[in-house]
Amino acid sequence: MSRHPFDWIDARAEQRARAGLVRTLRPRPAESPLLDLASNDYLGLARHPEVTRAGADACLRWGAGSTGSRLVTGSTELHAELEAELAGFCGFEAALVLASGYAANLAAVTALTGFGTLIVSDSGNHASLIDGCRLSRAVTEVVPHTDPEAVRKALDGHDGPAVVITDSVFSVDGDAAPLTELATACRRYGAALLVDDAHGLGVLGDGGRGAASAAGLAGAPDVVCTATLSKSLGSQGGVVLGPARVIEHLVNCARTFIFDTGLAPAAAGAAMGALRLLRREPERAARGRAVARELYERLTTAGLDSVAPDACVVSVRAPSAEAAVRWAADCRAAGLAVGCFRPPSVPDRISRLRLTARADLTDQQIADAARVIVTTAPRG
Amino acid sequence: MSRHPFDWIDARAEQRARAGLVRTLRPRPAESPLLDLASNDYLGLARHPEVTRAGADACLRWGAGSTGSRLVTGSTELHAELEAELAGFCGFEAALVLASGYAANLAAVTALTGFGTLIVSDSGNHASLIDGCRLSRAVTEVVPHTDPEAVRKALDGHDGPAVVITDSVFSVDGDAAPLTELATACRRYGAALLVDDAHGLGVLGDGGRGAASAAGLAGAPDVVCTATLSKSLGSQGGVVLGPARVIEHLVNCARTFIFDTGLAPAAAGAAMGALRLLRREPERAARGRAVARELYERLTTAGLDSVAPDACVVSVRAPSAEAAVRWAADCRAAGLAVGCFRPPSVPDRISRLRLTARADLTDQQIADAARVIVTTAPRG
Repeated sequence: MSRHPFDWIDARAEQRARAGLVRTLRPRPAESPLLDLASNDYLGLARHPEVTRAGADACLRWGAGSTGSRLVTGSTELHAELEAELAGFCGFEAALVLASGYAANLAAVTALTGFGTLIVSDSGNHASLIDGCRLSRAVTEVVPHTDPEAVRKALDGHDGPAVVITDSVFSVDGDAAPLTELATACRRYGAALLVDDAHGLGVLGDGGRGAASAAGLAGAPDVVCTATLSKSLGSQGGVVLGPARVIEHLVNCARTFIFDTGLAPAAAGAAMGALRLLRREPERAARGRAVARELYERLTTAGLDSVAPDACVVSVRAPSAEAAVRWAADCRAAGLAVGCFRPPSVPDRISRLRLTARADLTDQQIADAARVIVTTAPRG
Repeated sequence: MSRHPFDWIDARAEQRARAGLVRTLRPRPAESPLLDLASNDYLGLARHPEVTRAGADACLRWGAGSTGSRLVTGSTELHAELEAELAGFCGFEAALVLASGYAANLAAVTALTGFGTLIVSDSGNHASLIDGCRLSRAVTEVVPHTDPEAVRKALDGHDGPAVVITDSVFSVDGDAAPLTELATACRRYGAALLVDDAHGLGVLGDGGRGAASAAGLAGAPDVVCTATLSKSLGSQGGVVLGPARVIEHLVNCARTFIFDTGLAPAAAGAAMGALRLLRREPERAARGRAVARELYERLTTAGLDSVAPDACVVSVRAPSAEAAVRWAADCRAAGLAVGCFRPPSVPDRISRLRLTARADLTDQQIADAARVIVTTAPRG
């Protein structure tokens, strides 16, 4: 037993420092001089005056907080309206809004599985899906990344309820899951399909209706989607979309829904504002995808190692964690904010710059960003 | 294997219906005619114009969302300022703000424990602490409710790191944990103490500085507190308070911090507004406690079964889940919103009305509320 209960923390901090894996917070000002290719604000709506006005108005009208669990005082008519709009937009029967995308994934995974369930989980799935699997009473089989044959094999060996879980677009490399093939495999074996569309909503599908819509799976009786309101919709919160009976089940059984304070009205109002704007300006979705492809082509043409983007995320591999940190710092010094993903945030332990191709970037900004990334790239 | 992957959900719904345990959402309007004794808005700040104005202004100035993980673009100077204010107010070295209290508890429990750690957890702890224990690699020993001797026994039998975890004020009955005795036990055995002060911040301690402050434990090197910004502070979000090295450790290791979008600026701004208002009007904390005692005395004098309140929660036992639902409905018909807690939200499976004694209730409102609760009480 150590003399002091937190002395072990110092040893862990030294290990991180030696490995070049120290993370520090770098608070940004309200008006940053940097060009942002680091956020998940894919459609450029977080600062859109219509969206911030909708958030501010909701705060003034409904209160700064929802004041309780959604089952007690935390459900306002604003939440109900947002849920109806989200379900309608994405093409599902019903929707349930939670305080975060993380909470939505914990809710969906744990409530839809139990003792005897087999979860088949893509190895690239988001941390919140993994934590959902860990919290579940089910057995989880992790299958190789975007490999429908591995999913079929896992389902084939199981006798009982099963849920296949995947991100629609993977956060690290921006590549897409083979949803159509996964759905076919699920149907063959009577399994449910749970898709985290955090990086697809607002970007994929007709007018940004999301990955399930793009794959013809929206509203299917055996498909459940989760998504976040904090990326394309520029706000905060998470949502589960699915058949009405699944949503009712979550209301009754999902711990991160029942035992959490409802989403703040400002976040609900802003998400609604963003959704209505996206309905009016559906071209934002296609523009985001086009910006990503343009950026990817410029980077790969210059010899950088990237994966063809399926949505708005473009990632470029770095030779090491230290090189990635230095590269990101050099970009920053040149006026460009980029994401820097290092272990443990990358499942394959390959460090990367992660770039987000916002729909509101101009052609000149894309060219400038690509130039900075290429000229600051580590040689090797 | 069922023919359809969600058919089992209907069977579960029928079970709930037979047991009288169906939960349905009841969205409220912006201006409810009901007197609110159901929310966790203990100080009546969620609708306070200064707080909603601070939230709305933050939304307009900083954006509707934080746009990313706190480690990428999700940390604004507003978050840093709020963290400094929270740490200063509560008397801790450092603070870390997360998207929800649920996320804060998952972060603190998982990051402060690991293989070989013993977690000693009060049987009445909140679902988010329990989920944190489930996600942790530690062994969890659940001890009887508010029983320091049981905690000592658990620690005595363990050789290695240990963390004692408790709510400061338990959500169901509103009773307080014996923090001083728990801290003494922890120190004797070299264990850390983790306190969830969700229901204590803003209510307990000098001017609402919280349970740790009230117990003389604020800023102690072996104590970590979590709290929520969604109860007394009327907003949304969670916070972990503790030694600087613990907070740095969470920044580097806590999955619900690293892999979640940062708290929305509106929520951070509103919490800051509430905190500043509470600093200026510290008497709100004592008033909340006084309202709770007054309510408790009126109810017990009338023969109802309640537990002496240590903070702003007053709970009254009902003979059954059905009786509790009927009682709450009768209160509602008489103009009073009360919480109705049934299994599985009550660890002892005893259904209750849960009343919150808001600091902004008038003496007349307290008298009216007590009268309604007493006259609608189930006979038996």
